[in-house]
Parts: sequence; C-alpha cells; structure tokens
Amino acid sequence: MDRFNVTYRLFADTETEASDFAAAIALENTVEIPRDVVPSGYIEDVVLGKVESVETETDKTWLARISYHIDAAGAELPQLLNVMFGNASILKGVKLVEFSFNDDVRSLFPGARFGAAGLRQLIGKKSGGFVCPVIKPQGSSAEELAELCYQTALAGADIIKEDHGLSNQRNALFKDRIPLCAEAVAKANAQRKANGDSSQAIYLPNIGGHGDEVEELAFYAKEHGAQGLLLIPGLFGFDAMQRLARNDSFGLPIMAHPSFAGPFVLSEDTGYSHGCYLGDLMRLAGADISVFPNYGGRFGFSKEQCLEIVDACKSDTGIGKAILPSPGGGMSIERLPEMYDTYGDDCVYLVGGSLLRYGAKIGDAIKQMSAALNKAA
Amino acid sequence: MDRFNVTYRLFADTETEASDFAAAIALENTVEIPRDVVPSGYIEDVVLGKVESVETETDKTWLARISYHIDAAGAELPQLLNVMFGNASILKGVKLVEFSFNDDVRSLFPGARFGAAGLRQLIGKKSGGFVCPVIKPQGSSAEELAELCYQTALAGADIIKEDHGLSNQRNALFKDRIPLCAEAVAKANAQRKANGDSSQAIYLPNIGGHGDEVEELAFYAKEHGAQGLLLIPGLFGFDAMQRLARNDSFGLPIMAHPSFAGPFVLSEDTGYSHGCYLGDLMRLAGADISVFPNYGGRFGFSKEQCLEIVDACKSDTGIGKAILPSPGGGMSIERLPEMYDTYGDDCVYLVGGSLLRYGAKIGDAIKQMSAALNKAA
Repeated sequence: MDRFNVTYRLFADTETEASDFAAAIALENTVEIPRDVVPSGYIEDVVLGKVESVETETDKTWLARISYHIDAAGAELPQLLNVMFGNASILKGVKLVEFSFNDDVRSLFPGARFGAAGLRQLIGKKSGGFVCPVIKPQGSSAEELAELCYQTALAGADIIKEDHGLSNQRNALFKDRIPLCAEAVAKANAQRKANGDSSQAIYLPNIGGHGDEVEELAFYAKEHGAQGLLLIPGLFGFDAMQRLARNDSFGLPIMAHPSFAGPFVLSEDTGYSHGCYLGDLMRLAGADISVFPNYGGRFGFSKEQCLEIVDACKSDTGIGKAILPSPGGGMSIERLPEMYDTYGDDCVYLVGGSLLRYGAKIGDAIKQMSAALNKAA
Repeated sequence: MDRFNVTYRLFADTETEASDFAAAIALENTVEIPRDVVPSGYIEDVVLGKVESVETETDKTWLARISYHIDAAGAELPQLLNVMFGNASILKGVKLVEFSFNDDVRSLFPGARFGAAGLRQLIGKKSGGFVCPVIKPQGSSAEELAELCYQTALAGADIIKEDHGLSNQRNALFKDRIPLCAEAVAKANAQRKANGDSSQAIYLPNIGGHGDEVEELAFYAKEHGAQGLLLIPGLFGFDAMQRLARNDSFGLPIMAHPSFAGPFVLSEDTGYSHGCYLGDLMRLAGADISVFPNYGGRFGFSKEQCLEIVDACKSDTGIGKAILPSPGGGMSIERLPEMYDTYGDDCVYLVGGSLLRYGAKIGDAIKQMSAALNKAA
C-alpha cells in the first residue's frame, strides 16, 4: 500500500516519550479517537496514520516519520493539510520538518503551472536575476501607482509586483487600479519592444477583496491586462491559490506572499520549518514564486533559513516544477550584489520602499538593479 | 478622526527599543516603506498606523497600542487582518494581545448571527450546558455516521457536531453523508417531539471540499437538512466564515474549529493571545461557537488560557453578540462535572472519541452527559 510521509521534529525527554508522542500525532491527524477504539480493518489499516520510524536527533529532539494514505485526505487540499498537520499543530513541541509525497499526492496536486523555467520564458529574459520593484504605498491613487508601474517597466523591470497591502481600499479600488496599471505596463512594454528589447515586464496585482471573490477578481485582472497575480495564502487559504493554479482558463503565474503567516515558522518548537512552509507548501499549492523576508533585513530570518527555503523551492524531490524564491523585506540596491552572490539567476529580487527615495529617478534605480543582477554586466 | 486600536506585546530590552519597535510595526502593517519617504497628507495622517502608547509590562515586555484607520483596510476582512497583523506577524518578538474595535469595523463586521442566546433559542433548551457529541471516526461509512447521529440525537444531544476530519473522503463523501445524517437527526427529533421534548438536536456537518466551493457546499448542506455548519478558518480563511455568517439566504449557525492554527497561539512571543485568536477573531469573523482544546486534555492549554478564551467569547466589548465557547480535545464524561463548574451553562461541551467506548449504549452516555450539565439534575 502506497503512503506519503511527513517527518516531525518532536521535543521529548525520552525515546519512549517520543514514540508515544508520534503515535499520538498519527491518531490526532486522522481518526482522532483513542487507539483502543480504532475499528479494525480499513480504518486501522488505511486511514489511521502510521508511525514508520522515530529517530534520535539531539538530546531533546526526535525525528518521527509518519505515513498517511490519501484516503484520509480525499481529493481536496484543505483536508490534505488537515491530515498532515491539523489538530497536531495545536500540540506543544512538534514541528513539521519534511514532506515526502507519493504519486497519489502528486497526481492530485501537480504544482506550479510556470515554475522558474516557465517564468523565464514568459518574461523572455535569457539570463540574470529577475528585477522586481514593489509598487506602493497603500493610500496612493491608482494613477500614482500606474505611473510607478510605467516608470519601472520602461526602465527594464522584469516583474512589477504590487505591494501586498494594496487591496481594495477606496483610494485605489482593485477594479479601478488594475486596468490603469496594466495599461501603463503595456505601454512601457511596447516602447521596450520598439527599442529592440526582447523581454517584457509582467504585472502582478495583489488580489484584494473577499475570499469568495478570488476567482472572479483573478479573471477580472486577466481580462484587464494583468499577466499574473500576487496572493496571500495565509489570508485566503492555500486552496484558493491551488485552485487558480489549476484553472486552465486562468493560466497565469502566481506569486505567493507570506503575510499573516509568520507564526507558522517563527517558533522553534511549533509550526513548520522554513523550507516546508515557504517552499514545499507553496509548491504543493501551485505558487510559481514564493516571497520571503531576506536575512539581514527588517525580519529575523537567518541566511541558513533563507537557503533552506531556496532549496525547497528548487529541489528535485518537491512537488512539480522548481519555482522561484523571492527574498525581500527591506532590501536596498546596495545589498543586491551580495544577494546575487547568494541566490544567483533563478531568483526574484524584491526592492520596495527604498526605491521611493529615488523619486522621479526611479528608472535609474531599476537600471542599477538590472546591472547588479547580471553576471555579464 | 476615529481609529481602531490593536495592542501588541513587544519583547525588547529598553524603552527606546520598544518605542522603535512599535513605530516599525505601525509602518510594517500599513505603508511598508521607510518612515522618511511616507508621503505627507492623507497617507501619513490617515493610512499610516499610529503608535498611541508604549507601556512597560514586565522587565522585558512592553504593551504598544497602535491605532489604524479603516481606510487602510477597506471593506473586506482579509485586508483588515492584513493591517492588524500582516507583515508584522513575521517579525520576531511581537504578540497581538488586545483588539479595541470602533464603529467602522463593527458596522462592516457585525459578528455572529445567532450567538449564545440565539443558539439556545434555536435548540429550544431553556437552561443547562449544551451536550455535543462528535461524530467520528473518518473512514466510517455515511450509514455508520448517520446511525451515530440518530442514537445521540434521540438520547437528547443538543448539537451533533461532525468530526473536523470528516471532509469529502470516498467512504463518506460530503454530498452522500449530509442527507443521511440530517435525515437521521430529523427522525430522532420527531421522536423526541412526540415524547414531549420541546428541544431539538441540531446537526452541524463539517465543510469538506475545495476552498472555492464553501458557499455551494453550505447551501447543499442547508437544502439537505443540516441546521448549521462546522468550518475550519485556518484552512479556508476567516473571510470564508464571515461571508457565510453574513449571507442572509444561508442564515444558519457556524461553529469554528481551530485545526491547522495551533502556531497562532502556542508561542509566547509570536502570534496571538489565546483570547484574541480563539475569541475575538472568531467573533469578528461571525462564528457562533468557538471550539478549543480544554485544559487537562491531550493539548497543553492552561485553565487560565481557556478562561481567557471564554472571556473573549462573552465579553461586552467584543464584536457583536456573545458566542459560545466549546472546550474539547480528549474530554470524557467523567470530567464533565468539573468542566461544568468551570464553564457553566453557556458552553458547548464536546465529547468525541471516548463516546465510542460505549458502543451500542452510546445513548446512555449522552444521558449521563445531560445529567452532568444541568444544575437542576
């Protein structure tokens, strides 16, 4: 019988305690009844989580591998997440640190539509890191935001990402903003093309509205010229992203933003490892790009944690295509050479607020970014 | 200018550090650009978060109150959550511990449709704690689950809650299970009525399916006899719950389950206080009942944390109507008298897996529960 595996780091004092803990998690995430009343046969043999191994990691942590059958999840992502780390996420001293998916999961959730290679092709950029200005701040008018889109796209930006805080506020309503910004990017792309540039900027607006409007808003954005989307799975649910990624009529790339979800990774002994949450889960849910806070910025991620995310985004063992990591969070142009040494070509380099310092010369800043992110430059 | 307030516990070494931290959060959750480039006028005066006070709490923690204007959020819940604790949730050493909403928020998000009083009226139970068996385990057939519904409803259960792990698995697909279970509860209610019982059991199936099917599945459940729903906001998003709560055509009570969301409350220095997440946020998003793990069960919540949740569910200062707390997580009938002393009448008492020990005598177990949860008994 084919099962998929999830590995948890358990905090426990003894091996017996760790084994009991692992058995409790296997129950908790599936049948959620005492072990002695689990019905024999199908429920015990197939539905119940099964502890495959419990190994010592440090003097206070163990790694427990638990296998699950797809029958416990069914065909939808919310219940798959519920099985992998539902009720057990409320237990103290357990952190999910590794996924090992089988064909059951991979066939239901094939991952990113574009991935790293597909995005490079879509943008038409043969080499170099992706230059990604962030359009902001909230409170600006749609016209002001569109002007930033135009200036940055014209100067050679690859991806024009909206700030994740641009939602549906009255000063720049989603449906007012998208057509203006998309038109601005299209105008810049036309000028670039006329100047012999074979690459284009793609504009990714942030989904802003109600949770049950995501699909409608995504199609509105597409119909009005957006070439992809930014979405916050912590607020809208991972399945909202996954459903868009699988929607052939939509068919555009999706960038995932980690807002609201900090608690899933910040603690040593609860939640997910950085790689599992910001890499593996994002691929499972169909993201093409995963945004995360770079080390040395406003947030406290270490370089090691960032590289773990990158590995998970690119690993051959992950779901579907390799995707693009996207470090940001208080980055400046001055830091790009160092970042480029760390992350290389297949990476989306976010620079946001600090670009605003350049005022009318924001195009020069984009050109500096491009120069810093290209080995040939 | 009217603003709503959010209070954060900050971990910092000095008052200056705490003040700087608070100012950084006010930026992070709204404009997300450096302070010196925040445009003057509307964006600085209205959109930007404003530090109202920073007070010493302990020798290493401060309480910072930050006010926000509804213009930063707009009219939808995802962006309101994004403003209250979006990017700042990824910063280390900040925990959201108090909400103080204003009329802007209250008029957009009026809270629970039924609340504690409305549910008591709907069920027709004049006094006593609410008896709530949990129908499980996953892997059972729809017929087996329906039989448990019938037996527990007939014996006097008030709320028949499905296990949060019953989703849309092939052994009991959502659309197969709901009509059978609802019919079983209706049959039991008819027999209770014929026996002179003026109260009825309500059946709350768990929403199982894709995130973009929540509304469709909710209406399917209603049309096929369910009297309410269980929903996991951690998986489907708080706004999925809020939209259903505000949908007049749906108009049924909603029970919220904390699965997947453990990391939001488990850590000392990240996420939310127990009361804010499992009380205040649930009310904001329209839940009528909030499930949480009781102290002394399989989970590690303290009695103090549980009482904080109860306070948040019932407080006059919360959003809308007072709602029902619902402690569970490994509770047995033996513990009910002690729980009843703690939680009293306005509480939904969950007993799940341990009921299965009673086998064919599960009805007797329900009668014991009823007896334990009624002062007059």
